Amino acid sequence: MLSRSQCRKLAARSVSVSTDHKVAALARRADFPGLVTASGAAWHYLDSAATAQKPQAVIDAASRAMGRDYATVHRGVYARSAEMTLAYEAARRRVAQFIGGQEDELVFTRGATEAINLVAQSWGLANLKSGDRILLSELEHHSNIVPWQMLAERVGAQIDVCPLTDDGRIDLDAAQAILTSDHKLVAFAHVSNVLGSVLDARRAADLAHAVGAKILIDGCQAVPRLPVDVTALDCDFYAFSAHKLYGPTGIGALWAKADILNAMPPWQGGGAMIDKVTFARTTYAPAPQRFEAGTPAIVEAIAFGAACDYVSAIGLEAIHAHEAELVAQTRDALRQMNDITLFGPEDSAGIVSFSIDGIHPHDLGTILDEENVAIRAGHHCAQPLMDKLGVPATARASFGIYSDETDVAALVRGIERTKRIFG
Amino acid sequence: MLSRSQCRKLAARSVSVSTDHKVAALARRADFPGLVTASGAAWHYLDSAATAQKPQAVIDAASRAMGRDYATVHRGVYARSAEMTLAYEAARRRVAQFIGGQEDELVFTRGATEAINLVAQSWGLANLKSGDRILLSELEHHSNIVPWQMLAERVGAQIDVCPLTDDGRIDLDAAQAILTSDHKLVAFAHVSNVLGSVLDARRAADLAHAVGAKILIDGCQAVPRLPVDVTALDCDFYAFSAHKLYGPTGIGALWAKADILNAMPPWQGGGAMIDKVTFARTTYAPAPQRFEAGTPAIVEAIAFGAACDYVSAIGLEAIHAHEAELVAQTRDALRQMNDITLFGPEDSAGIVSFSIDGIHPHDLGTILDEENVAIRAGHHCAQPLMDKLGVPATARASFGIYSDETDVAALVRGIERTKRIFG
Repeated sequence: MLSRSQCRKLAARSVSVSTDHKVAALARRADFPGLVTASGAAWHYLDSAATAQKPQAVIDAASRAMGRDYATVHRGVYARSAEMTLAYEAARRRVAQFIGGQEDELVFTRGATEAINLVAQSWGLANLKSGDRILLSELEHHSNIVPWQMLAERVGAQIDVCPLTDDGRIDLDAAQAILTSDHKLVAFAHVSNVLGSVLDARRAADLAHAVGAKILIDGCQAVPRLPVDVTALDCDFYAFSAHKLYGPTGIGALWAKADILNAMPPWQGGGAMIDKVTFARTTYAPAPQRFEAGTPAIVEAIAFGAACDYVSAIGLEAIHAHEAELVAQTRDALRQMNDITLFGPEDSAGIVSFSIDGIHPHDLGTILDEENVAIRAGHHCAQPLMDKLGVPATARASFGIYSDETDVAALVRGIERTKRIFG
Repeated sequence: MLSRSQCRKLAARSVSVSTDHKVAALARRADFPGLVTASGAAWHYLDSAATAQKPQAVIDAASRAMGRDYATVHRGVYARSAEMTLAYEAARRRVAQFIGGQEDELVFTRGATEAINLVAQSWGLANLKSGDRILLSELEHHSNIVPWQMLAERVGAQIDVCPLTDDGRIDLDAAQAILTSDHKLVAFAHVSNVLGSVLDARRAADLAHAVGAKILIDGCQAVPRLPVDVTALDCDFYAFSAHKLYGPTGIGALWAKADILNAMPPWQGGGAMIDKVTFARTTYAPAPQRFEAGTPAIVEAIAFGAACDYVSAIGLEAIHAHEAELVAQTRDALRQMNDITLFGPEDSAGIVSFSIDGIHPHDLGTILDEENVAIRAGHHCAQPLMDKLGVPATARASFGIYSDETDVAALVRGIERTKRIFG
């Protein structure tokens, strides 16, 4: 990890910025009703890593599913319920295919956080024991730390923390040196939500498997930003959410290898996850139904599928290249300014974290808001990484398919104004 | 519980049915886009106990929240995120008030099933030990059985089953006789999802408290059908879902007394539920945030609040009376027919379960579907109750605020046709 002084040196380098280079949005901004302020002005939304705005196609899919198509799934004997069941299961297939998986390997969860908790509390409790070890990294989101801490405390396991490279990537050489046959699980973010650094997930999986450990990849930031193929990555678990993928809130997914998922004990009990219930003995449905107790998030699953369709039509390769251009433009522009520390690697996937000497990120965020620029300021649910960076918070600009160079220009103007105010 | 022969005797009684009596819908049917078939005909939707159709006001609230108002909550430094946070917390207050509770006592969950699992896995694991007992009833939904079986198995507790009265209510005299100081929890449905029978929840709470037990009420079917006041009921936990209350899928709520909720350990770890995270030690936020790990179901919470508004404007007293009229009309009409067994009490809350000799409920459901009548046929996620009734399945017609006498008439016509086909 670069220290602040190293970053400052980097910032002082002479960088040639092509201000003529235009980066157009990949998606029609007009498709996104959220990209307009209450007064009708363009909103420079640079908080897509927190949650993405939704295209009208996704909103319409949700409205139809709540309206003229609405019925419960898996139970009704009438045609509309059967159709809704087909639509729900088609959405499962769609979401699974989106990351290169099969439908019977995909569990719909409330979100990525629940997906990770499901692994910790079902697979983890069944497979970890006292003395086992779990390897996390310094850049993990709280959702990929706290469930493992709770599991470790319960079973008496130990957590190891993989350090980062100087430019803010999970140091896989260090991981290789740390991993032992005591390690039963590695849990790493595919893309850091603070630094945008991209994990070599295949190498991480190979390292985990070399010592007999499973690997969970937190894919929240990767799925909207990179082509993801869980089969090629050879990971065991992959967790992600819909709302960061231009989809609805209230739903996410856990993908897991079929043999692992099928062997996992149930976590939440209820309707739809059972085979037969008696007070003497209850038997359970096969996966993935075993992990979907109760009436599922029907509308959200269908809108999740619609979001996959929308994003696929643009293409993840194009999205990744688009966001890389915006990141380069932003980093280049910020580097021209004094007193700005840039965090994370140059090839960050769509996310730029930075700080300005003497200006708290919250103050920056508040002033930018007056300019219709929305950034995130805070610890980004990654307090251990903030401790590592030696800052209480960073400012973070993050991009999406609707972002363009006007957003970067507005951010730069806003920072300049903030610096004048605080100057 | 009435045996089938007793029910048949009841059916053979001469009952005067006022066929002139008109029961109009309480809500404008045109408010509900789901109440129309694909060909534009009226849909006689008699499966509201499975899930309710949504009024346009709820769909619009969700669309706005996904569109022009969309932002994350609790984290953004920009105004729209602050506004969304206010809207989200206002929805929490609205939903809590809807059942007579306070906002700091209400946790948003994925649904009622998750709410019950949260109690079992947080409060239950912390408070139950080997030798303790849990009292359920014979009519519980699987979601109020399986979580307790999983808990009991884990801690070595025992489950007792309270029998039903002849007319299908939880027999509280029997409960009183069963309860001992070994009982730490009573978990009963407020309204049976199969029989529509209404629990005297206050008496059940008093009986539980008399032996030092807590009581959880599964309010899924009660909240859309009866005025509910958790303070007056003096229950400890109250679980319900939005989608049965004319609200969105993907969200429900756990209400719990503040002192109990505050003492409960976290269940799912992640962002937003923590106070401070380090790899050495993590501390947690107070309730209810402690139980809402990750980005919440923002859009769903706001639409849940809108559903409460819509239902409140009609009024639960009026809804209860309306559904009682429809139940009486239905039971009277079915009683006039041969070979029909009616289950449950006469004063069922909006739900009529029945069977027809020689016709499987699924076949009935399929033929009714041709007449644009949607009923539920099956075990209704209450297999122990089916065992008790001595049937593999029942047919169930359930009503809502949009139901009227045309729905009952269509049901009766459809049953007559089915009997002719099978006759």
